[in-house]
Amino acid sequence: MHEPGAPLGIFDSGVGGLTVLRRIMDRLPHEPVVYLGDTARVPYGTKSAETVVRYARGCARILMDRQIKLLVVACNTASAYAIDALRDELSVPVLGVIEPGAQRAVNATRSGRIGVIGTAGTIASGRYQSVIESLAPGTFVACKACPLFVPLAEEGWSDGEVPRAIAETYLREILDRDVDTLLLGCTHYPVLREAIAAVAGPGIAIVDSADATAEVVAEILSAMDYAAEADGAPVYSYLVTDAPQSFARFGDLFLGRTIARVDWVDF
Amino acid sequence: MHEPGAPLGIFDSGVGGLTVLRRIMDRLPHEPVVYLGDTARVPYGTKSAETVVRYARGCARILMDRQIKLLVVACNTASAYAIDALRDELSVPVLGVIEPGAQRAVNATRSGRIGVIGTAGTIASGRYQSVIESLAPGTFVACKACPLFVPLAEEGWSDGEVPRAIAETYLREILDRDVDTLLLGCTHYPVLREAIAAVAGPGIAIVDSADATAEVVAEILSAMDYAAEADGAPVYSYLVTDAPQSFARFGDLFLGRTIARVDWVDF
Repeated sequence: MHEPGAPLGIFDSGVGGLTVLRRIMDRLPHEPVVYLGDTARVPYGTKSAETVVRYARGCARILMDRQIKLLVVACNTASAYAIDALRDELSVPVLGVIEPGAQRAVNATRSGRIGVIGTAGTIASGRYQSVIESLAPGTFVACKACPLFVPLAEEGWSDGEVPRAIAETYLREILDRDVDTLLLGCTHYPVLREAIAAVAGPGIAIVDSADATAEVVAEILSAMDYAAEADGAPVYSYLVTDAPQSFARFGDLFLGRTIARVDWVDF
Repeated sequence: MHEPGAPLGIFDSGVGGLTVLRRIMDRLPHEPVVYLGDTARVPYGTKSAETVVRYARGCARILMDRQIKLLVVACNTASAYAIDALRDELSVPVLGVIEPGAQRAVNATRSGRIGVIGTAGTIASGRYQSVIESLAPGTFVACKACPLFVPLAEEGWSDGEVPRAIAETYLREILDRDVDTLLLGCTHYPVLREAIAAVAGPGIAIVDSADATAEVVAEILSAMDYAAEADGAPVYSYLVTDAPQSFARFGDLFLGRTIARVDWVDF
């Protein structure tokens, strides 16, 4: 039913998932992709589990209608709350960003002490803590919700006095717990990496989910013999549930390339 | 059809409108009120006109089902985009926060130079500019969208290093235009008044819509003979479209009183 030439489907609450798409484009340059940003309901990180699951189902439905061969939930909050429901309900492989990111952090730590930052919803879900515990029992995990990082990244203030002052306020508590690895548990946060790294200092490894997620997507496609043929540039489609014209301007900062066309959809 | 004992209806995208409700409670202590925060779709300030109108209609429908006698749109973005549609469609008086706030600013300025800050949507709508021009032709208006102020207020960081650094960044351009009055064109911003005032300095009058809106509500009720009887403490009801348990914690900061009970509704 799902052809190798079918697109990958990726959704996020808005623009943050473009940091994941960027790594997927790098790792799998022949794969066509349909990206959906739920900009009419963004953000997910401050909303309840029930509401996020409802929104995630709506996003998945739109992408399934586009005959995708694999679904990437490129939003940590949606991954935390909705991944089990989507796996139960959908007929394609469903990959979130939490397991790949947690694996990357477990590989990176030498002291067995990891800091995790994310949205209020992601941190409250306890999902990173439980996944890290299952991958490497006994690992110490210090978590902190950083609600201002998403609007900060969307404002395009990626470094400077304000981002560093906010990072200092949020990270102090985690850094005081002697972690040696800091996991960016939100797809917006790679945009703020310089400010976060400046506050964390040189002794801390900073990891995010994007590379690891792209790698797992490649492994699944390979294992299922679903990979696209290497026959020229693939088609990238961008869908949003609100304000297509303002979505495109995030292309440079989040995706590292220009977004030429964005279409409106809704559920 | 609408009894004097019927409640006032107030809606906002989330918690910001509680700053308006606070002034209405002070000014009209006998009026029962139903407050609705659309927390499943918050914020409105970053979304398109079409989407905000759709959400505003949904909110109005829920409140009309509660037999309200007057509707206050306690959200600047919804006031900017949806007030005309709601006035056309509803059978009760509909009051936004833009006209009262603009009138207050026009009364306050001596130099005829006003600064207006608000969400991206409110500023892009041009509504403050056109209302001020109609009230006092020839007034100079300098506008600036301040997208980080809403998440900052919701994070509860009302004053200190970070709010002042953000305020400095946003306000510099407006202050350089020699305004003598600064209008807080978003219901969240009164929470940040100290930080904003510290950056603006003593020569600038800072005005918001909340007092002025409460005053206009009182005038309408009086003119229509709709005011409630002064017979004991009125009932206040709080409705939200998501996460009722986390809404209550904003009572102290935004409303100045404890919110005991919040009910979930949706549209």
